[in-house]
Amino acid sequence: MIKNFCSDNGSGVSPEVMQALVEVNTGHMPSYGNDAVTLEADELIKSALGRDCDIFYVYNGTAANTLACKAVLRSIDSIICPDSAHIFTHEVGAPANATGSKIITLPTVHGKITPEQIKEAHQKETYWGAHATRPKLVSISQSTEWGTVYTLNELKAIKTVCEALGMLLHVDGCRIYNAAVSLQCSLAEMCQHIDILSLGGTKNGLMFGEAVVFFNQEAADGFLHLRKQGLQLHSKMRFISAQMKTLFTDQLWYKNAEQANQMAAKLAEGLVKHADIAQYCPVQTNQVFVTMPDELAKQLMAKVGFFPNGPECYRLVTSFDTTEEEVDGVLGLLK
Amino acid sequence: MIKNFCSDNGSGVSPEVMQALVEVNTGHMPSYGNDAVTLEADELIKSALGRDCDIFYVYNGTAANTLACKAVLRSIDSIICPDSAHIFTHEVGAPANATGSKIITLPTVHGKITPEQIKEAHQKETYWGAHATRPKLVSISQSTEWGTVYTLNELKAIKTVCEALGMLLHVDGCRIYNAAVSLQCSLAEMCQHIDILSLGGTKNGLMFGEAVVFFNQEAADGFLHLRKQGLQLHSKMRFISAQMKTLFTDQLWYKNAEQANQMAAKLAEGLVKHADIAQYCPVQTNQVFVTMPDELAKQLMAKVGFFPNGPECYRLVTSFDTTEEEVDGVLGLLK
Amino acid sequence: MIKNFCSDNGSGVSPEVMQALVEVNTGHMPSYGNDAVTLEADELIKSALGRDCDIFYVYNGTAANTLACKAVLRSIDSIICPDSAHIFTHEVGAPANATGSKIITLPTVHGKITPEQIKEAHQKETYWGAHATRPKLVSISQSTEWGTVYTLNELKAIKTVCEALGMLLHVDGCRIYNAAVSLQCSLAEMCQHIDILSLGGTKNGLMFGEAVVFFNQEAADGFLHLRKQGLQLHSKMRFISAQMKTLFTDQLWYKNAEQANQMAAKLAEGLVKHADIAQYCPVQTNQVFVTMPDELAKQLMAKVGFFPNGPECYRLVTSFDTTEEEVDGVLGLLK
Amino acid sequence: MIKNFCSDNGSGVSPEVMQALVEVNTGHMPSYGNDAVTLEADELIKSALGRDCDIFYVYNGTAANTLACKAVLRSIDSIICPDSAHIFTHEVGAPANATGSKIITLPTVHGKITPEQIKEAHQKETYWGAHATRPKLVSISQSTEWGTVYTLNELKAIKTVCEALGMLLHVDGCRIYNAAVSLQCSLAEMCQHIDILSLGGTKNGLMFGEAVVFFNQEAADGFLHLRKQGLQLHSKMRFISAQMKTLFTDQLWYKNAEQANQMAAKLAEGLVKHADIAQYCPVQTNQVFVTMPDELAKQLMAKVGFFPNGPECYRLVTSFDTTEEEVDGVLGLLK
Repeated sequence: MIKNFCSDNGSGVSPEVMQALVEVNTGHMPSYGNDAVTLEADELIKSALGRDCDIFYVYNGTAANTLACKAVLRSIDSIICPDSAHIFTHEVGAPANATGSKIITLPTVHGKITPEQIKEAHQKETYWGAHATRPKLVSISQSTEWGTVYTLNELKAIKTVCEALGMLLHVDGCRIYNAAVSLQCSLAEMCQHIDILSLGGTKNGLMFGEAVVFFNQEAADGFLHLRKQGLQLHSKMRFISAQMKTLFTDQLWYKNAEQANQMAAKLAEGLVKHADIAQYCPVQTNQVFVTMPDELAKQLMAKVGFFPNGPECYRLVTSFDTTEEEVDGVLGLLK
Repeated sequence: MIKNFCSDNGSGVSPEVMQALVEVNTGHMPSYGNDAVTLEADELIKSALGRDCDIFYVYNGTAANTLACKAVLRSIDSIICPDSAHIFTHEVGAPANATGSKIITLPTVHGKITPEQIKEAHQKETYWGAHATRPKLVSISQSTEWGTVYTLNELKAIKTVCEALGMLLHVDGCRIYNAAVSLQCSLAEMCQHIDILSLGGTKNGLMFGEAVVFFNQEAADGFLHLRKQGLQLHSKMRFISAQMKTLFTDQLWYKNAEQANQMAAKLAEGLVKHADIAQYCPVQTNQVFVTMPDELAKQLMAKVGFFPNGPECYRLVTSFDTTEEEVDGVLGLLK
Repeated sequence: MIKNFCSDNGSGVSPEVMQALVEVNTGHMPSYGNDAVTLEADELIKSALGRDCDIFYVYNGTAANTLACKAVLRSIDSIICPDSAHIFTHEVGAPANATGSKIITLPTVHGKITPEQIKEAHQKETYWGAHATRPKLVSISQSTEWGTVYTLNELKAIKTVCEALGMLLHVDGCRIYNAAVSLQCSLAEMCQHIDILSLGGTKNGLMFGEAVVFFNQEAADGFLHLRKQGLQLHSKMRFISAQMKTLFTDQLWYKNAEQANQMAAKLAEGLVKHADIAQYCPVQTNQVFVTMPDELAKQLMAKVGFFPNGPECYRLVTSFDTTEEEVDGVLGLLK
Repeated sequence: MIKNFCSDNGSGVSPEVMQALVEVNTGHMPSYGNDAVTLEADELIKSALGRDCDIFYVYNGTAANTLACKAVLRSIDSIICPDSAHIFTHEVGAPANATGSKIITLPTVHGKITPEQIKEAHQKETYWGAHATRPKLVSISQSTEWGTVYTLNELKAIKTVCEALGMLLHVDGCRIYNAAVSLQCSLAEMCQHIDILSLGGTKNGLMFGEAVVFFNQEAADGFLHLRKQGLQLHSKMRFISAQMKTLFTDQLWYKNAEQANQMAAKLAEGLVKHADIAQYCPVQTNQVFVTMPDELAKQLMAKVGFFPNGPECYRLVTSFDTTEEEVDGVLGLLK
């Protein structure tokens, strides 16, 4: 059977993670994160990210992004981000709603923006003084919504311009693992250039659970309160922590992301062999965007799940559990 | 070993629920609730609640309460609730924050309010016309934060006054199962008098997951958007639905709540035999409030977990997994 | 002396309006709008706008726009507007902040958008279902921030597409009087195509005071409360009402706007005679946008007040009190 | 003719203030506060308040209170105030709505609270840690909504407890002038104990206009943006500034408040001579609260305007323009 390629959210839970959930289900533990498992998870993550930081587990990625923004923004501040950013396009305006802040969007090349664009947007907004907002946060996604990846140098350059402008850098890392695999770098190398990170989980094999990670300690002030008010404090916290602990044990995060990336590469390679299918943008992680005639897409979608992403543009996503057989299955449909 | 009696949140996951989670973890399924398991859970719940309704799964109880309020309130409206209400005391103001609405609190007898109080509060607020808010929602907890229970007649009387005043009735039902066991009534009987229900889960044996249930269809308008914006849309929805489905299969909800209630009754009965311990309020569900000298409490708390709840007042909570042995263990400490 | 051409906000108060303020200052009157002067102003405005409507006076234009949006939007809804809209660019995000709603901006030709753009934006946003917002309001400015004017047919076409899409049409009319003079039409003719109007005042000779006008009665529900909560209920209301009454007596609004428009036309005509100065966009009301070398602008700005509005683009604004002599004064500087 | 005693909002504009408005209406001036009149007003106020401070003019008192709160609070913070506070009872929840913060109310003696109450409320809220809010602001009214006045020592004691608890003290000073007259102290003496002041205007003879005054410089950060976003930036600012300048010239504020206070004293003295009328609380400023039979009140209200303020309790308010004849007129009705 061909699994659907609709989203990495369509997959289930990594077996190692499910095992950990079963094992942690013994007896009573302190609620709300005051348990030993949470401490262990914290330590493993800190070690992987290579910097001292404050870590707060939340339920999902939209929450991580939204509360990350709310932690550091006043209503008179603004966020600069790509116009393809999940926080702008697919969260029913949650970050702007929660912060009351304005979102200033920039056009992108395949989901990525440049330091020059940030500088220009900052200048344009601040020109109007007290009649406009104070740009305080840049938010980018790594990997991006188009599956592309900022190089370490690009990240560093964006962080540098943020510092020069008195802005913080937030990274939506719901697929940061796929980016690290793509760049063949450690998470620590990436985190050097980040102030606040939405650390993914669900898209890389967890049942539920993400984290907001503050490398900037001041930004974490009051976040315990904010997480509760933000509807994100899980009472039986050990069941998030145990998953996170597992993800950062024996580099499960790497293994899972690598499998997804490799399957995406294989899928892309096969798809573009078809005369009517072309790559829409570089395939660097686990998302494949291709153009094809709507008629062809329709025929394919009758047999395997995936979605359109614009006119004649289609998205296929692989997951930690995507197999070579499944990719071959899709490719076989094209013959 | 004596489990802690700090909270029903300290417990783990009901074995039946954990089993269901393991079993539902096969292959890919549509995300965001467009899966068969979610439909099955919906049907089981509707059947148990005995009325047509719209059901939306969310992560936790604070979220259920907050989004229930946000679904039906404008910022110029207000909520009338007991001053002991979780939505007022323990959610960092989340419901007021999300709605922008004013919360009007009433003094209670052991967590319960009366129709007369509601009428009076409504009159007092509306006296000031456009300088004050429009009371639109009454929110009560069943069972209450003090472990007490509204009778069916009391519920009906509150619902009647709400209707007369053009208000809706919301019930925080994070422990509604314990109330049903206490009243020896069906959930359907209680739901006859409710417009919007926060249907519990976590406190009765789930890993995570609650539901917002609208018996008033108009109130559900746009709630799919609101849930996403409210940071509560779980992508891998089947993992909430499978739990809910289990809770409503073979009346697991009843079995779990009954065990908790029975253990609380036994615990209370034993505690008050001690000369220095007195019952603080009626024990009708799974929460036991007693007064005792702080010194005695200190000695006990060194051996079993529970918390103070005011001057010389202490709270002990039982759970679906509390055993007779554990209760005897606590009581044994008093000899 | 040459008055500054920085803004129609730089001018003072129309003599007729000041006279009315002095005259209404006798004895005590009921506060908050329950006075006879307010009723008279309401009637005069209704008569001029030619439709039954609900009128609420507020302090300024940003407030009128913001509360107009808040009256009809939930946080899950969105606003479609030009990217030049005052509500997006110059109000520190007030409308989005107050509503929690997303603002979807469209590129413009000199501040104007088309029905086709609205349709496309609506389609693009709603494609994502519950992951995106519900577009509910189109907001345009008449006259626009670039001084241009929608024809009656253009207004009608936008209103028609709004209806087809289930959206309401809001018009920021802080300079609607200048638009009416430009189109040589009545306010009533324009208002036929509007659901909610921010009716200007300050920019056309008032000391302070604008109005939110609802032609859609349902939209006005609760607005008395919203105005108070929105910090816009003036206690000594007669002092706004008396001004509005004067503006709509003997068509003062027309006389004032006509003077401003005529002076702008004369100014534009004279400016573009200079070899280095070109008209940036059509001059249809009281705002003149021209391009000129920054060096030339600098020389001029040393002697008469006006502001840059982008690279080599400058804005000069006339007012009800701008005289031929003042325009000649500016033009004389060019010789 | 007897003027109404409904509110000091029912009065018109002080002649000196109206004269200033007429005189400032000459030619063009820079908008938004960048004019000479605003600077002059600032200097006069600073001199009267006796401390360095940041002054921002706004339209009305609700706005001053609301933006004062918003300037220093995050949504996870809370406000402690009397349950009679205007910010809680009569502003449709505006401060809570704007800040997203919780309001913790305290019972009062005639509108006043004590340091002990504040301490206790702080302790009670913070007991719940991250499940509750962080009390950050105490807000009191001087004079209070019941017309009473905190002595300088009482103010100082409240400020001291605020400092000890890490809280700021906000004073709603819409009638601070009446309090100063009552205490026979300078504004400077009172302001020594205040962090943020809502400085009144309208109730003491202005047409419109109040000010937010920050003695705590840090609290003023970003307030220019906040005022604009908060719908409170008046474009033709000189027309607020000229009024404020007049109020602080030749101590007009004192003269106006003194007249109101004296007339209230005379009114109260006369009223309580009637066998059926009793003073409800001390008359220290310009508000008189008396109890009388509803039937008697009804007869009086047919001839002179005033309002009930609770069961058999009535409020009569004097103003800068209340005359001895008018007071005698009311008293004459009782004979």
